[in-house]
Amino acid sequence: MPLVRISLIKGKSSEHIRAISDGVHRGLMEAYGAPADDRFQLVHQHAPDELIYDPDYLGLHRTDDLVIINIVAGNWRETPQKKALYRAITDNLVANPGLRPEDVLIVLSPNGRDEWSFGNGLASYVEDDAA
Amino acid sequence: MPLVRISLIKGKSSEHIRAISDGVHRGLMEAYGAPADDRFQLVHQHAPDELIYDPDYLGLHRTDDLVIINIVAGNWRETPQKKALYRAITDNLVANPGLRPEDVLIVLSPNGRDEWSFGNGLASYVEDDAA
Amino acid sequence: MPLVRISLIKGKSSEHIRAISDGVHRGLMEAYGAPADDRFQLVHQHAPDELIYDPDYLGLHRTDDLVIINIVAGNWRETPQKKALYRAITDNLVANPGLRPEDVLIVLSPNGRDEWSFGNGLASYVEDDAA
Repeated sequence: MPLVRISLIKGKSSEHIRAISDGVHRGLMEAYGAPADDRFQLVHQHAPDELIYDPDYLGLHRTDDLVIINIVAGNWRETPQKKALYRAITDNLVANPGLRPEDVLIVLSPNGRDEWSFGNGLASYVEDDAA
Repeated sequence: MPLVRISLIKGKSSEHIRAISDGVHRGLMEAYGAPADDRFQLVHQHAPDELIYDPDYLGLHRTDDLVIINIVAGNWRETPQKKALYRAITDNLVANPGLRPEDVLIVLSPNGRDEWSFGNGLASYVEDDAA
Repeated sequence: MPLVRISLIKGKSSEHIRAISDGVHRGLMEAYGAPADDRFQLVHQHAPDELIYDPDYLGLHRTDDLVIINIVAGNWRETPQKKALYRAITDNLVANPGLRPEDVLIVLSPNGRDEWSFGNGLASYVEDDAA
């Protein structure tokens, strides 16, 4: 279900980006119970002046390694599960590709069960419901 | 009203992309009653390793022709109308540019009537409301 | 808190884009009370055929200077504050870089307090809540 947009400053290796992609997806599997094959991610690489960030907001020091992860995900999770997701993704990206935990910024964008069509024109998660 | 983001792997012709753009917009007109001139779309073309998808999630086989369509649209539609939208867009893209129906992935991102400003600094859909 | 995506047709100067970035952020400070250091923005520059817009929807004439500003922002603002935001951002961009007010299009995408992690794997705005 999640649709993930990963934004970072261009210039990183393919291995670096792949590790981020993998770590985000593993975090979704660990904390949200996302199936291994429920993986849809878009990577946006920006010139330095196209990714504008504050280096110290909330007292956390950020660098040009910052990754902004915007996840469209169903609105039926509660706060504890969201907290678990932040921890899981951040831990994964610290382990590989070795990001500083301050450089992992995650924003969730909620939607509903009937707002996903994974192909064939079906409302994938509510197709059997009366409608 | 809708703001549409169309993401695909780069390398397609302008005609191919234009057909997708047209088919998505016609689907919004058909199923949501969007006016013909209510058309605002952003196309994001990604390198192959920047658009990561599972080729078989939910038993639907996807290819590199996959198009991920993320539509910010008002939250006042009910499920039947959303289902009609998925069918309309997918049918249109199968007809032209000839996509496989499994290669059309649609995600809706809801917002409210007061969350649109189409110019001049106005809240276009609620400007006459008391506020 | 806001995560801002600024989309425009490529070919503008760095100064032009920087003025847009500054004006959007100042608008968020003025109307939403966003802290000066709560600034996270992504700029997407598109080829002309990748940014598709209607030149006259709702009777407002738009040009290739159009800027589409999509802001993920907390869902706790009321309509008057959103209206103030549209006015503030648009006024700022008219002043600098000198955009026509019809060429400023703003779309808000709401989310919740527990949907932001600004680093360290924390749910930045609800970390102290019981959960």
